Amino acid sequence: MSNIIKLGFGMVETALSYNAHVGRGALSNFADEIKSLKPKAKILIICDKKVEPIYGEIVQNKLEDADFLVETYSFKEGEYSKCLDVIDDIWTNLSQRGYNRGDLIVAVGGGVVSDIACFVSATYMRGIDFAIVPTTLLSMVDACIGGKGAINMPQGKNLIGVFHQPIYVCADTRCLNTLAPAQIQNGYAELIKTSLIAKRRSFFEWLRDNAQSILDSDEVALTNAIKLSMEEKGRLVSFDPYDNQGVREILNFGHTFAHALEAIYLSKKSQIDHGLAVAEGIRFASRLSVQVCGLDIEVVKQIDKLLDRFNIGQIQDKLEEEAIYNFMKIDKKSKNLDSMIHFVLLRDIGNPLACNVDEDVLREHISAFCRSRA
Amino acid sequence: MSNIIKLGFGMVETALSYNAHVGRGALSNFADEIKSLKPKAKILIICDKKVEPIYGEIVQNKLEDADFLVETYSFKEGEYSKCLDVIDDIWTNLSQRGYNRGDLIVAVGGGVVSDIACFVSATYMRGIDFAIVPTTLLSMVDACIGGKGAINMPQGKNLIGVFHQPIYVCADTRCLNTLAPAQIQNGYAELIKTSLIAKRRSFFEWLRDNAQSILDSDEVALTNAIKLSMEEKGRLVSFDPYDNQGVREILNFGHTFAHALEAIYLSKKSQIDHGLAVAEGIRFASRLSVQVCGLDIEVVKQIDKLLDRFNIGQIQDKLEEEAIYNFMKIDKKSKNLDSMIHFVLLRDIGNPLACNVDEDVLREHISAFCRSRA
Repeated sequence: MSNIIKLGFGMVETALSYNAHVGRGALSNFADEIKSLKPKAKILIICDKKVEPIYGEIVQNKLEDADFLVETYSFKEGEYSKCLDVIDDIWTNLSQRGYNRGDLIVAVGGGVVSDIACFVSATYMRGIDFAIVPTTLLSMVDACIGGKGAINMPQGKNLIGVFHQPIYVCADTRCLNTLAPAQIQNGYAELIKTSLIAKRRSFFEWLRDNAQSILDSDEVALTNAIKLSMEEKGRLVSFDPYDNQGVREILNFGHTFAHALEAIYLSKKSQIDHGLAVAEGIRFASRLSVQVCGLDIEVVKQIDKLLDRFNIGQIQDKLEEEAIYNFMKIDKKSKNLDSMIHFVLLRDIGNPLACNVDEDVLREHISAFCRSRA
Repeated sequence: MSNIIKLGFGMVETALSYNAHVGRGALSNFADEIKSLKPKAKILIICDKKVEPIYGEIVQNKLEDADFLVETYSFKEGEYSKCLDVIDDIWTNLSQRGYNRGDLIVAVGGGVVSDIACFVSATYMRGIDFAIVPTTLLSMVDACIGGKGAINMPQGKNLIGVFHQPIYVCADTRCLNTLAPAQIQNGYAELIKTSLIAKRRSFFEWLRDNAQSILDSDEVALTNAIKLSMEEKGRLVSFDPYDNQGVREILNFGHTFAHALEAIYLSKKSQIDHGLAVAEGIRFASRLSVQVCGLDIEVVKQIDKLLDRFNIGQIQDKLEEEAIYNFMKIDKKSKNLDSMIHFVLLRDIGNPLACNVDEDVLREHISAFCRSRA
């Protein structure tokens, strides 16, 4: 199996297909790939202050060795940089330094970096090309695929954004060596989610059978996990690049509950790891699936077991029934149809279904879920 | 001939086609059209302070009569509103008022308004639908077609932008009654430009033969002129929606010189009408075409005659040779290939050609053009 994944939108757009290169040492080909795609481009690397002295410099050196003119722009790490001030400052830098439509942006980092770089690339001169070097597991299995760029507003996360596909993705698993355990877990949770909705049911089974190798950071297993996840997400995105046809929506499995949890913590000026929130969302949605669309209770147990296998625990704080319900209702991914809330559920592993769940049924389930934790 | 023009991008994207309704009284169908396209949308009208009490209110009333929930956002008229502060304020308004991806923005006004509304629509929640009610001739024949949205940066005009197609355009020629003569002339200049590059050579002949009717604001002639222009621009855009394949570039005929003139005036804190600048650009480019690609000198005379017929005069100020040359070189639409400057020229009426012009040839021509005016 090759380590190059073809991603594309051939069915719906022109010439919008690109490669993702995955694996240990993938970065060693990076400059050559960019040379073949954009031989004359001037390059701006976008990264955060934490990544800059590690992978930012490595990527800059590789590109300079290949005779590219390269500059780096970095900002303070963290979600708070996904704001208009940072975007404006990057736009100003690009224009003052004379970047034009033929040039290139390279995002080096996690999801925050690729969100910012994608938004800037889509809007500078009505669109310039960008490539992504994801450096976190979460970004490799999720954020680097799909072409979503966004910034936050005081009124909501990712409220302002665009769709703009990268021209190349280079996921070198060596970058994962410097990640903290909590960051790795964020990636595991999305990996498990994707395995549950994947058309290829064998993904779930493979993940279950290879959990220990992945936990041990075995290169072959890790590379395969990332590739399976990229392929599955890439397939869904290719059918629905603008996330308006319902296909891509199934990627939100577990996320309505997860976003409610994240919003609750945020409202208290606190924070919850995305991976932990998604894991709780998976637990909640799989239990709701039993009643709403007939998921076998045995499958719920298998899902719980897989989450446990990856050491993704449960929230220790008290779950607040009323707050969860209220934040779910305002989550942008749930559309109100009279008294129904839109939810992605599972009929079986690999068989997701977007359902409208009655508010009363949902309240009852939230209540039961919270009680089970008390 | 119907007054509905089908515009689309069927060859390159999914479901991105829309109608433009042109003619006297077109606005009377506006609310019905929106009802059929977006029956449940909440609507934000975007316009400037000058248009708001005239057409802004008319459109709002029509939509409210059709039971839509409608709000209006207006900003100070003029190019200076195409800035990030205005965009940020509209984003904030949209989110505070609870607009979501199913809602609609309606731009009512000229090119500045549609540029702003297009940019906001493309980026709010990664894209919501928008419609345009152009109220100037320039906007009807040019800005409302093509899906370009943009804002200015201190470093340049339209430096930040997007491509985002409207779902409906409604060009009611009655809106033109309130335009000042200079504004009408801006439209004439773009109309003439489009007739010169149009695949359908009869456009130029029709324009020449019907100049007096158009100047007299005859409804039938005016409607036909707008439709011919929309169709021609729509055709070019459909082949090249992202302006990166060279097809759409021919719409820049006359604009490299025009942009240099506009930049010179701007650098002196002064201003030149876009129509006048484009007319001078057409005169310059047609003369350059004689030497570079063999345009018949008789055709240049015909072009001059048509510009005169529409009473589009010449700049009275002294033309500054050196400044024109320098601004042309930095215009983003001219790509430097060694010592060549990229230019759209004419081999004949209806037969444009993108050429690389040697810098020395260009300097000589600028010099001759300026001397002819001294």
